[in-house]
Amino acid sequence: MGKSTGAKACDFVLFGTKGDLARRKLLPSLYQLDKAELLDKETKVIGVAKDAFTHEEFIALVTKALNTFVKDEICPTTLERFLSRCHYIGTNFTEPEGYKAFHDLLEPSKRVMVNYFATPPSIFGAICRCLHEQDLIKSDTRVVLEKPIGTDLASSHVINDQVAEFFNENQVYRIDHYLGKETVQNLIALRFANSLFASKWDNRTIDHVQITVAEEVGIEGRWGYFDGAGQMRDMIQNHLLQVLTLVAMDPPVNLDADSIRDEKVKVLKSLRPINQDNVYENTVRGQYSAGFLKGSPVPGYLEEDDANTNSNTETFVALRVDIDNWRWAGVPFYLRSGKRMPFKSSEIVVYFKNPPHNLYRASYRNLPPNKLTIRLQPHEGVEIQMMNKVPGLEQKQRLQTTKLDLSFTDTFKSERIADAYERLLLEAMLGNQALFVRRDEVEQAWKWVDGIIQSWEQSGEKPKPYPAGTWGPVASVALITKDGRSWDE
Amino acid sequence: MGKSTGAKACDFVLFGTKGDLARRKLLPSLYQLDKAELLDKETKVIGVAKDAFTHEEFIALVTKALNTFVKDEICPTTLERFLSRCHYIGTNFTEPEGYKAFHDLLEPSKRVMVNYFATPPSIFGAICRCLHEQDLIKSDTRVVLEKPIGTDLASSHVINDQVAEFFNENQVYRIDHYLGKETVQNLIALRFANSLFASKWDNRTIDHVQITVAEEVGIEGRWGYFDGAGQMRDMIQNHLLQVLTLVAMDPPVNLDADSIRDEKVKVLKSLRPINQDNVYENTVRGQYSAGFLKGSPVPGYLEEDDANTNSNTETFVALRVDIDNWRWAGVPFYLRSGKRMPFKSSEIVVYFKNPPHNLYRASYRNLPPNKLTIRLQPHEGVEIQMMNKVPGLEQKQRLQTTKLDLSFTDTFKSERIADAYERLLLEAMLGNQALFVRRDEVEQAWKWVDGIIQSWEQSGEKPKPYPAGTWGPVASVALITKDGRSWDE
Repeated sequence: MGKSTGAKACDFVLFGTKGDLARRKLLPSLYQLDKAELLDKETKVIGVAKDAFTHEEFIALVTKALNTFVKDEICPTTLERFLSRCHYIGTNFTEPEGYKAFHDLLEPSKRVMVNYFATPPSIFGAICRCLHEQDLIKSDTRVVLEKPIGTDLASSHVINDQVAEFFNENQVYRIDHYLGKETVQNLIALRFANSLFASKWDNRTIDHVQITVAEEVGIEGRWGYFDGAGQMRDMIQNHLLQVLTLVAMDPPVNLDADSIRDEKVKVLKSLRPINQDNVYENTVRGQYSAGFLKGSPVPGYLEEDDANTNSNTETFVALRVDIDNWRWAGVPFYLRSGKRMPFKSSEIVVYFKNPPHNLYRASYRNLPPNKLTIRLQPHEGVEIQMMNKVPGLEQKQRLQTTKLDLSFTDTFKSERIADAYERLLLEAMLGNQALFVRRDEVEQAWKWVDGIIQSWEQSGEKPKPYPAGTWGPVASVALITKDGRSWDE
Repeated sequence: MGKSTGAKACDFVLFGTKGDLARRKLLPSLYQLDKAELLDKETKVIGVAKDAFTHEEFIALVTKALNTFVKDEICPTTLERFLSRCHYIGTNFTEPEGYKAFHDLLEPSKRVMVNYFATPPSIFGAICRCLHEQDLIKSDTRVVLEKPIGTDLASSHVINDQVAEFFNENQVYRIDHYLGKETVQNLIALRFANSLFASKWDNRTIDHVQITVAEEVGIEGRWGYFDGAGQMRDMIQNHLLQVLTLVAMDPPVNLDADSIRDEKVKVLKSLRPINQDNVYENTVRGQYSAGFLKGSPVPGYLEEDDANTNSNTETFVALRVDIDNWRWAGVPFYLRSGKRMPFKSSEIVVYFKNPPHNLYRASYRNLPPNKLTIRLQPHEGVEIQMMNKVPGLEQKQRLQTTKLDLSFTDTFKSERIADAYERLLLEAMLGNQALFVRRDEVEQAWKWVDGIIQSWEQSGEKPKPYPAGTWGPVASVALITKDGRSWDE
């Protein structure tokens, strides 16, 4: 009995239901949607894994996952309702015979099938083929693909082609969980519903933009996976570029999925290529060495468990990105993302140009600029830095930077801020692709990122070390200060 | 021993030292300046009134005034120091003989003479003449003139001429205490040190501006004075027009007094005249009738003590003001000021234009605009209203107006917000005219205001009644709603 904004009935099939993502994020998010009465009463959740679980064993697994990873207290009524939706199919993902069991559970005439592939991308194609061979794919069947969609343009082509053999693009939902964050969604409202920003969002008024995603964690336990990827593939190619496109895109024709994605892909196409000629000026890559985090010693990347001590994989990237279009000509976007930073923080900072003339030059040779900070995490919110006169009789012309602040958690106290996955699962069930990444976006992003990674590989240089618990190599500071700017603090 | 930002030694002569203004505001402000160590150790305070006080009687009067009207606890050290500066001269203001006593107190070679005329303006000229006849006026002698400078252009001419016979304009300091308020001074910083506003402060980006000065008080005890003036002369001609000029002026060449005042007077010259042809569309005047304020009954204006029950004097004015220049063509300024409003409040609200296209028309036929609120009192501060997405899964495209807030008292906790008179007395002692009104400003303001008052008089209509404790006559609402706008609430 979903509310009017809830999704219609579906068979939500979760491939890889035993995995980390499913247990930590997906099952808890489905539970939260159920609790919020956003799931139709007929909706089923069908876990798929290779183990031969009994129904009871699967229910026990789901219950344990919820008890472990749901943050608020479990509501017994919701739990009971949710568990009654749960079914299990044990099969080897690549074995079509095992998919026959679906026919007993699905009712395509009544419920749309939404498949979530929380599995290695290497078997996305095989799963699709099995679904096809069992005649399980209808025109409204959907697939939700977890990242990474490949590790470069060529491998993403392969994966996308494999899926496209069985699904049209309008059936494919590529996850980037940053797009489910409230503040990221709010970017569109902020930009297009506020004339204070809408009318001055270009190179006449903006000096530059900074996007920072700093993680406090190191690699811890997933060294093997991460070392094959690196920070560039793991964070920049998806999350930071997605945020960049939302900050930089032209106004869409309307708020439909493809109108927005049309504009986003135009930004990606406008990114100035970084290659061997300009890779030194525009990129810094780092790798954390042993250091201290909040007072405690932590090991370096090469000292973590399972580490290959010769690894050249970067755990930190800083970039100067130029967008070669009419809106952004001359306005650099500085991106940085790293692990083992001093604290967890994701934010976008838009620096406005200074007034054309400085009336306060007697007190300030350079006036501090206005800046707009959009905090993605923690403490989602919006903040404007402006200049005010310091009150007081002795402070005649003294100015001070002050902050106008809007904290989401303070302002919307009564609202629980939903996890990004809750939003994205709901949207997939609703059939709205706006918050998912289109194939041309993924591929355009890989094309640009490949240029950087190839340039790094060709140079043969090692990433620059930085002590864990710092903001990356000194070269990251140099990257921005040589342009007369500095990282936001 | 003043600090470096304090004023040089002066003889501060306070004409009308027994009066209400001197006791409530001027003596307490001088005390506060002394406490803040902003008075030179040689500075004297010389009270002048017609009574034949002994020194001790005068000291008692000053002490009583400070004990009564200084808001924080009296500091004994400061009090002792301040009282040791105090001297008294008893004389009829218009009697030159009585001014001989000044020669015993003043030391023109060591201390500049700053005369403060807290007396009826009708005797400003006579005082100047007496000072002149006793050869007390040097090239650096100053006069500070309290309002009202006349009741219309003609009478202000007379007063200004009388003073100008003995003082050059650069020696004359006309008080408008609104110019001493922190938030009013901050207007210049806000506008010219913040590109977010500097670059969009015109008719391309601003829809309209509202300036409200609402008083909770009625006339109480000064009926006779007020009835001869009315709200137009008492509040609009000076305070509201001064605030308007600071909001509307072009960027000054620099922050010097005359650079700023040059720009302010240009705004006054650009005010579209209001006369018999357009007085109905652009003005509303009201007079409060009996009503309730915070739950208690209060009498109407015509029922106050000493009231002339036939009075047509207005206690409320609302105006639509057009500024006929390049910057503001098509951007109305709505002004309103009244007594017996529901609560005390002074604020400037700048309404920005909506984005050129409404992407959210499915949810909002008209998007609420961005607006910038500058609160002058109470709770001085700055606030921006913007649109944000409402968090939550069910709130997909729902927007909400939210506020970015900067409270001066919260932000500058350690700073005591100085009274406007403290600032203005200090500036007069420092010889800085920036926060004082130049003769051409006063006269230009009168010229414009005279047109309105004459049109009202010619119409013969009575002011519209409004119950005490409301926001003025219904016609005030009509004045702005006919333009498709509404007063800020």
